[in-house]
Amino acid sequence: MALPETTALALDRQDGVLHATLDRPDAGNALDAGLIDDLVNTFNAVRDDRSVRVVVLRGAGDHFCVGADLNALADFDGDDASARDEATAHSRRFGELLETVDAAPQAVIALADGAALGGGFGLLCVADITIVTTDTRMGMPEARLGVPAAQILPFVVARIGAAETRRLGICGHQLKGGEAARLGIAHDVVDDAEAGEERITAVLEDVLACAPGAIAETKRIVRAARTAEPAALLDAGAETFTDCLTGDEGRDGVRAFFDKRAPYWAQGDGDA
Amino acid sequence: MALPETTALALDRQDGVLHATLDRPDAGNALDAGLIDDLVNTFNAVRDDRSVRVVVLRGAGDHFCVGADLNALADFDGDDASARDEATAHSRRFGELLETVDAAPQAVIALADGAALGGGFGLLCVADITIVTTDTRMGMPEARLGVPAAQILPFVVARIGAAETRRLGICGHQLKGGEAARLGIAHDVVDDAEAGEERITAVLEDVLACAPGAIAETKRIVRAARTAEPAALLDAGAETFTDCLTGDEGRDGVRAFFDKRAPYWAQGDGDA
Amino acid sequence: MALPETTALALDRQDGVLHATLDRPDAGNALDAGLIDDLVNTFNAVRDDRSVRVVVLRGAGDHFCVGADLNALADFDGDDASARDEATAHSRRFGELLETVDAAPQAVIALADGAALGGGFGLLCVADITIVTTDTRMGMPEARLGVPAAQILPFVVARIGAAETRRLGICGHQLKGGEAARLGIAHDVVDDAEAGEERITAVLEDVLACAPGAIAETKRIVRAARTAEPAALLDAGAETFTDCLTGDEGRDGVRAFFDKRAPYWAQGDGDA
Repeated sequence: MALPETTALALDRQDGVLHATLDRPDAGNALDAGLIDDLVNTFNAVRDDRSVRVVVLRGAGDHFCVGADLNALADFDGDDASARDEATAHSRRFGELLETVDAAPQAVIALADGAALGGGFGLLCVADITIVTTDTRMGMPEARLGVPAAQILPFVVARIGAAETRRLGICGHQLKGGEAARLGIAHDVVDDAEAGEERITAVLEDVLACAPGAIAETKRIVRAARTAEPAALLDAGAETFTDCLTGDEGRDGVRAFFDKRAPYWAQGDGDA
Repeated sequence: MALPETTALALDRQDGVLHATLDRPDAGNALDAGLIDDLVNTFNAVRDDRSVRVVVLRGAGDHFCVGADLNALADFDGDDASARDEATAHSRRFGELLETVDAAPQAVIALADGAALGGGFGLLCVADITIVTTDTRMGMPEARLGVPAAQILPFVVARIGAAETRRLGICGHQLKGGEAARLGIAHDVVDDAEAGEERITAVLEDVLACAPGAIAETKRIVRAARTAEPAALLDAGAETFTDCLTGDEGRDGVRAFFDKRAPYWAQGDGDA
Repeated sequence: MALPETTALALDRQDGVLHATLDRPDAGNALDAGLIDDLVNTFNAVRDDRSVRVVVLRGAGDHFCVGADLNALADFDGDDASARDEATAHSRRFGELLETVDAAPQAVIALADGAALGGGFGLLCVADITIVTTDTRMGMPEARLGVPAAQILPFVVARIGAAETRRLGICGHQLKGGEAARLGIAHDVVDDAEAGEERITAVLEDVLACAPGAIAETKRIVRAARTAEPAALLDAGAETFTDCLTGDEGRDGVRAFFDKRAPYWAQGDGDA
């Protein structure tokens, strides 16, 4: 696998873990077209590569991500048909980013400090494990600017349910770590970024003990179960289970259990 | 917009906020046919009027709403076909009330004290922001009377998920403010109604800072996302975003942001 | 109704309550084919019998249920087509167990102590009311063995939502009573099994005050509402409501309300 060329996203692969850092610190890591493309391209590049087992999202500088880049709208001419088309395509592309991260076969960990607003809030909601500091400011302020958080809302619904999403969306209020944890947006609230790094180390230990293919299947099944009744998934679930059991991971995992040793994916540095 | 004539619902419009008070205090604001009609007609009357930006639901007297009006059942003849048809139509109409409030484009705030049972509990579950006192008694006691809370249950599922709804429905037990907040039925638990009014003032400040059209779109998108995968909503989301961005609200909202002023909908008294 | 012959499940009917105890204590009540069959057969046998109003699930010995019986996999030959078919059928049958319990018209109470892992965790997630001790160890360790918890995951999604399910599934970490309660897996956390029995007594009082047919309809409606919009259920809800209101339970429930007496199903020992 070759990682893509990126300009607004700093990539650092360490064994099975890809550290992807939003790298527009002077702009609060606002999601402009370049950063969105860098993120989509990176997740697409590693999608079918099970040796990349975890992606860790961080923001460079003081903020995780302040949201959309409003400067792009400073000279926006709403009467210009091609400008409108461009705005629509940009919105669509941002939604595609959230969908791409949500559908990633890898475990996705996000660590946020400072602001995680709008699109940045959306990214926290599609990560599998989200760690924020006590003072991280989160929320969807869009309606205060006269627009709905159109692409973000569905992913927030998938994260915390429709009722709380609606409340957050129509108030536009900011929440901090404690409320984010209570709602299920954040899974860990830490004092500062340094403590966040310690949490990441602990989470990686758990995630790297799990087989990468089994993680990918787990995420796929959970996505399917969001809008299907369990009964409709019984047949496919049985097929998937046997496929995994008779694959490399299942064979070694069961043998390792009886041999009282770590399976191959959990040995050493986390490399697959 | 003309508000409808109502007899069991007291209406008081103050600028962009419509205060609607269930007004059958001697009957604990039980939902009889007249009150249901008043509520449905009121929400329908303001549906397409973005100058009515918030509806605040309260109950007159000691209770928010004790539920269905059981007196209507005292002489009910279950063997009479036309009586049965009437019961079915009444149940259907009550479900239509919950659907109408749930689908309201306005922000809906509910403040409850005393009892909020059965249908009253249902109303709390379709409000966007629900404030209850510590001692408010809530729940679905229907199964203790030998019937399921047929119209209410689906809206409780939409509010707090199927698992907790099932538990509440098959126990019929009453919950108070603390448990209601933990489950996501209530968003604020206050000591008494007076403190509730203070919370409403604070919530109104947040809601009136958001554009009324953006709130309507936000609620519409969230409803759509309850039973659709996010990926299926990307195209429509992009269209909606651009429509709002190039509409009156989006244009003024973005301009106001760069001008460091309040947008037109957030100026003064909250009038649109 | 005749209870089925069972070997790995101890059955004890006391009036309206069927106590079903997983009875393979030497194996941690691991779910082998026999125990799965006993459970499915038992729930099927009582399905249409409203005189069995509650099923209480417990585990004999130190654990509720340690999960699948891994010994069955010790000599598993993944290259043998008939062994594969058998594994698929077994997985399918286990999923059918979870579906059967989830769809049971009876109230289902589960009390867990020790370990409730994998399939045991799944059983906790399909019970209506789940009581665990502070130290009960729960979770889905499957991915650490190289396989996804294919049949369990959809039922966990139905219980606690997709986001938390995904996190638990890809970490494989164990949770205790406190976290289980916070996530909505457990409804009561008690100090020990004895305190759990006291909670069961209290819960039974609530459940037996509710009409058995109304409980069955409540559970059916909630299941339907998991993947349908409330608006799509209004007509069926009204029909169900009138059917119940004009049935034996509704007629006596309303009469009893006005007569200030207990309805027939709530009198005496809980027998229907």
